[in-house]
Amino acid sequence: MRKVFNFSAGPAVLPEEVLRQAADEMLDWHGSGQSVMEMSHRGKEYMSIHAQAEADMRELMGIPSNYKVLFLQGGATLQFAQIPINLLRGKTSADYVNTGEWSKKAIKEAKLFCKVNIAASSEDRSFTYVPAQGDWKRDPDAAYLHFCSNETIGGVEFNWVPDTVGDVPLVADVSSTFLSRPVDVARYGLIYGGAQKNIGPAGLTIVIVREDLIGHAPAGTPTMLDYKAQADNDSMLNTPPTYAVYVAGLVFQWIKRQGGVAAIEKRNLEKAQLLYDYLDTTEFYRNPVTRADRSRMNVPFTLKDSALDDAFLKGAQQRSMLQLKGHRSVGGMRASIYNAMPIEGVRALVDYMREFEKQHG
Amino acid sequence: MRKVFNFSAGPAVLPEEVLRQAADEMLDWHGSGQSVMEMSHRGKEYMSIHAQAEADMRELMGIPSNYKVLFLQGGATLQFAQIPINLLRGKTSADYVNTGEWSKKAIKEAKLFCKVNIAASSEDRSFTYVPAQGDWKRDPDAAYLHFCSNETIGGVEFNWVPDTVGDVPLVADVSSTFLSRPVDVARYGLIYGGAQKNIGPAGLTIVIVREDLIGHAPAGTPTMLDYKAQADNDSMLNTPPTYAVYVAGLVFQWIKRQGGVAAIEKRNLEKAQLLYDYLDTTEFYRNPVTRADRSRMNVPFTLKDSALDDAFLKGAQQRSMLQLKGHRSVGGMRASIYNAMPIEGVRALVDYMREFEKQHG
Repeated sequence: MRKVFNFSAGPAVLPEEVLRQAADEMLDWHGSGQSVMEMSHRGKEYMSIHAQAEADMRELMGIPSNYKVLFLQGGATLQFAQIPINLLRGKTSADYVNTGEWSKKAIKEAKLFCKVNIAASSEDRSFTYVPAQGDWKRDPDAAYLHFCSNETIGGVEFNWVPDTVGDVPLVADVSSTFLSRPVDVARYGLIYGGAQKNIGPAGLTIVIVREDLIGHAPAGTPTMLDYKAQADNDSMLNTPPTYAVYVAGLVFQWIKRQGGVAAIEKRNLEKAQLLYDYLDTTEFYRNPVTRADRSRMNVPFTLKDSALDDAFLKGAQQRSMLQLKGHRSVGGMRASIYNAMPIEGVRALVDYMREFEKQHG
Repeated sequence: MRKVFNFSAGPAVLPEEVLRQAADEMLDWHGSGQSVMEMSHRGKEYMSIHAQAEADMRELMGIPSNYKVLFLQGGATLQFAQIPINLLRGKTSADYVNTGEWSKKAIKEAKLFCKVNIAASSEDRSFTYVPAQGDWKRDPDAAYLHFCSNETIGGVEFNWVPDTVGDVPLVADVSSTFLSRPVDVARYGLIYGGAQKNIGPAGLTIVIVREDLIGHAPAGTPTMLDYKAQADNDSMLNTPPTYAVYVAGLVFQWIKRQGGVAAIEKRNLEKAQLLYDYLDTTEFYRNPVTRADRSRMNVPFTLKDSALDDAFLKGAQQRSMLQLKGHRSVGGMRASIYNAMPIEGVRALVDYMREFEKQHG
C-alpha cells in the first residue's frame, strides 16, 4: 500500500498497479527496447497500444459502432470552443444548463460562436443543486443541449440523463465522471472530457461523438479543431499524446480487472455513502448540496468554524491525507474520491474528521 | 547501456538517465508520496516543476526577458493555425519559405487565414536544398516570415538564420532542432515546436514569443488559441500536460549536465559528420541533399539498389538498430540522430552500413 491518500480534484490519484507497471515498462516496453515515450506513433508497437486503448474504452463504456472515439489534446477547455464550431451545423443557438463553474466556462466560450440559451441555472442557490427538468426552458431549434455531468468545484452531479427533445443532441462534459458509472452512450450526441481525473495523465482529451455530427465544421476552421479531420485520421492527424494514451490504456485494463464500470460504480457509491453518511450525522461539517444531486466524485464540505480550516488541513497532512483544501471560490474542504481512491482512503478521512470534531467540536 | 539504438524521427529516443529517473520517481516524487501525474497543477510541487522547467529552458537557450515561454498542447500542427491567428495583426498576407513537407503543411493551414506569399521554394529540386536568400521574393508588408528550421522528412536544415527585413518578424518551426544548437532568440519573433524529438514526450508544444506579438488575436478566437490568454495565465489557462512538462524538465537538466547547448551541438556535429563522411566515400548509399544544407538531426539515404532495402532493414533490426525506414514520401532509409542518440549508435550504424555494402556491393 502507498503511504498517502491523495484527494486532489485533478490531476488526481491513479491506481498504484498502473503506476508500478508504467515504472517497470519505462525503459523497455514488452521487450521492444524502447520506452513508450520513444516510439514512433506510426510504428506497430504504438499503433497496437493506441488501438487496444480505444477497444478497451469501447468495451468498458459499450460505445455503439456509429460513434467515433477521438484521442485529442487541449482539455475540456478547448472542447468548449470545438463543440460549437463543429456542432452548430448552420444553426445559430445552443442550449446550456448552468450548474456551476465549469458550466459557466463552457457557456462563456460558446458565446464566441453562437447565441447561448440558458435552459436552466442553479445560480440562484449558489449552484447547490441540479434544476429539475420540468422547469427547463429549451429551444427546439437549438443546435445541441450542453450540460456538465459533474461540477468538480460545487460537487453537484447529474444522477440522471436529460431527455432528448426533438433531434437536439445531448452534449455532456464528463471530465470528472468518465468511467465512474455506466453511461448509455446512445442517448448522447457527444460526450467529452479531460483524462486527468479518472483516466490518466493531463494532456489527453477524449471525445466520443456520433458519426452524423462529424463533418460540419465551417470553412476556415483550424484543421486540428475539425472532428472530421481527426476522425478520418484515427486521431493521428499529427502526433497524438502517446504516453498519456498508453497510461490511459493501463487504467482501462485496471478497470476491467476490477470487474468493469458496474463494479467500479458500486465501489464509488460505497465510498461516497461512507463520507456523506458521516456528514449527515454532524453539524460540525456541512455539505451544501441537495442530497439527490450530490457528487460521487467530489465532496466539498465546510467546517462550522472556518477559523479551524488551517488546523484541519495541517492534521490531515500529518496523517498523509493530501490536497483536501477546497476550491478558492467555495472555500472549506473538498475530498475528491475518484475511481482510483481506495475505500481505505475514505475511511481514514472519516476517522480523522470524527477525531477532529471530538477535539474541536 | 541500453540494448537498442532507436533512430525514430519522433517521438524519438530519450536520454537513458532521464527515463531511469522518471521510472524511479513514478510512485513517489521527492518524498511527496505522489506521482507527478497525480499532482494538482495548482499545488506547490507541480508549480515548482513547471517553474524550474521554464527557468532551465530560458537558461539553456538564453531567452531574453521580453519573450514569453508557453507550454501548450496540439503540436506544431495546431501552431500552423495559431500563428496566423495571433500574428497577422490586421495584415492580410504572410511570407513562407517552402523547403519540404512540413513547410507545405504550415502553408496549407495558413491559407485558411491569410494570403500566403511563397518567398522561396526548393520544390524544383525535390526539396534537396535551402534556397539562397538572395533569390527570395519577400513582401515588405508581410505579417511575418515563416520557415521550417529543419525538414525531418527531407533532411534539410537551415544552417543560417534569415535576415530580418523591416519589422517583419521571423517565425521558425524548430520542432526537430530544439536545443540541438545555439539559437539567437532575439533574431526571431516566434520560435515553436513539438517536444517529441529533442525535448520529451509527445503532447507538449513549446512556443517562445516576443511580448509585443502577443495580444493581437481577433475577436472570436478560441481562448485556448490566444497567446495572450495563455501568457496571462503562465500556460495554466487550464490543466497543462503536466507529466510531459516534467519529463521535458528532466531533459533540460540532462542537457545542463552535458555542458549545455554548445556542448550538445559539438556532439551533434560529430555524430552527423561521422555518418555523412561515410556516405561521401561510397556510391552504394546516397544522400540527395546539398552539402551545406544537410540536416544534423535527420539523415535520409537511399541504397543504390532499392531491392536491398528490406534486407538492410532486417539486418539493422537484428543488430538492434530500430526505425531506420525512410518516410514513405522519400523512400529509402532515414537515421534520426537527435540529442539523445549516443555517438555509439551512429558508429554502430556506420559499421553496419559498411558491412552491408561489403556483402552486397
